[in-house]
Amino acid sequence: MKLIDGNAIAESIIAELTAEVSQLSGKKPVVAFIRVGKDPASVSYVRKKEKTAERIGIGSRLYLLAEDVNKEELFAQIDALNDDPEVNGILIQAPLPRHIDETQTFNRVLPSKDVDGFNTLNIGKLCQEDHQGFVACTPAGIVELIERSGIETEGKHVVVLGRSQIVGKPAALLMMRKALPGNATVTVCHSRTKDLPSITRQADVLIAAIGRANFVTGNMVKEGVAVIDVGINRVEDSTKKRGYRLVGDVEFEAVAPKSSHITPVPGGVGPMTVAMLMHNTLRAFKAAKVT
Amino acid sequence: MKLIDGNAIAESIIAELTAEVSQLSGKKPVVAFIRVGKDPASVSYVRKKEKTAERIGIGSRLYLLAEDVNKEELFAQIDALNDDPEVNGILIQAPLPRHIDETQTFNRVLPSKDVDGFNTLNIGKLCQEDHQGFVACTPAGIVELIERSGIETEGKHVVVLGRSQIVGKPAALLMMRKALPGNATVTVCHSRTKDLPSITRQADVLIAAIGRANFVTGNMVKEGVAVIDVGINRVEDSTKKRGYRLVGDVEFEAVAPKSSHITPVPGGVGPMTVAMLMHNTLRAFKAAKVT
Repeated sequence: MKLIDGNAIAESIIAELTAEVSQLSGKKPVVAFIRVGKDPASVSYVRKKEKTAERIGIGSRLYLLAEDVNKEELFAQIDALNDDPEVNGILIQAPLPRHIDETQTFNRVLPSKDVDGFNTLNIGKLCQEDHQGFVACTPAGIVELIERSGIETEGKHVVVLGRSQIVGKPAALLMMRKALPGNATVTVCHSRTKDLPSITRQADVLIAAIGRANFVTGNMVKEGVAVIDVGINRVEDSTKKRGYRLVGDVEFEAVAPKSSHITPVPGGVGPMTVAMLMHNTLRAFKAAKVT
Repeated sequence: MKLIDGNAIAESIIAELTAEVSQLSGKKPVVAFIRVGKDPASVSYVRKKEKTAERIGIGSRLYLLAEDVNKEELFAQIDALNDDPEVNGILIQAPLPRHIDETQTFNRVLPSKDVDGFNTLNIGKLCQEDHQGFVACTPAGIVELIERSGIETEGKHVVVLGRSQIVGKPAALLMMRKALPGNATVTVCHSRTKDLPSITRQADVLIAAIGRANFVTGNMVKEGVAVIDVGINRVEDSTKKRGYRLVGDVEFEAVAPKSSHITPVPGGVGPMTVAMLMHNTLRAFKAAKVT
């Protein structure tokens, strides 16, 4: 069993990006973050993204809007950043307050600056295998983990647990594309799937993104499976100071001994997301220079 | 075994659309066809579409461009139709000559007039389960056949053979969506899939869109499978005046006896495509009236 070290792989990507950015003469890439309200997780995520940008040499700007911001104000901010030639990428930290439509908001970002890959046009490009589009950071991170861990996908059976717009479906589309990593037979399972274990046991590669703590048990996988665990779930744990610990969608202790490769939680897919955001920002910068 | 009569189901849809159009006071929907060159199949397809529009009471316009039309001329024609408030839907008959990029051309059509559902934005909407978008006519026709034949998909295992942008992938996305028909466990197989029969034999519903004559044999399906055969392949047949006959991707004689439902070729999915184009045109018309 090989533990996939997401922190180490993310660090390699960050080092590659840092080297590339240091070679740039003149302007550097810039990413803009919009954070609405003070959700503690959002505050922490955005701070992590700012710090990573700084390490790479990517400029960042932070725009803080009040929890009760109205749509017009938020959109005016997005429009200003869309129009600003200095800004290459725009990230609007989710979740947004309930009175703001997220899909509409993400679609307000110019596709060419949509480094989060949530714009409908970029999702369409992913489906069409147009590699000019931006792939959302979590599925893009999954693909990098698979590639850099040497997990084969060609002709393999990849089972994706979960059909969300931001993880399950794009991961499935990437795994079935006519390129590597990809060229896999792909099955998408979800809450309505009947006799799930009979399907997950067929997986050569299992991507778990269902959001249920320790959902995938040892008897649901076959010997030699490669496991990418996207879940980040809190379970109560009185031995921890904060009263909980983070676990994935996969029961690690039971599944790891049967796996050829497995990601831990935390330290698997999580760190990749920020690295891929920076990767996308550099790509947006280079594309903007060309046009 | 129940034979799914695509002609009869298409006729029901056409009758429903005719009734709805006859209730419209004032303007009627209009669809514009652009045909480039004189490919005999394209001539015949466009004629069929014109006739069906006429039967329903949908106006149609035909624009014929020479085989050697350049991109600028073609795009100018598309732009004129995009700008024309009388035109609700625009269909550019594929295949286009080699010197014209099809994806770029389909993307030139306004998403709101893209009744063929080939625009990247409409594909993104399909992936996002945004029902305001247009679904391409063949996968939309597959869904209608499934629904009107009473084939259950909820929790069933749907196996899609083929991963094309215009059939396999959209059909897979529709079958996995959180709506009916849909809510299925979906597996997408293709040329790189290993041990294909072991997967197709799991199918409760098999959608074959691989473009290989009689590819799916009797031993590749289980008893009780519902089969949607999207293939239209020519095989030599000296007993026919034209020297060939049309067959699907499924070996009908061997598979039909094991099937709960099966589409014939011709007369299955084929007739649905034109009906769904008209369905999309009427939707585009109604949406244009609202805005």
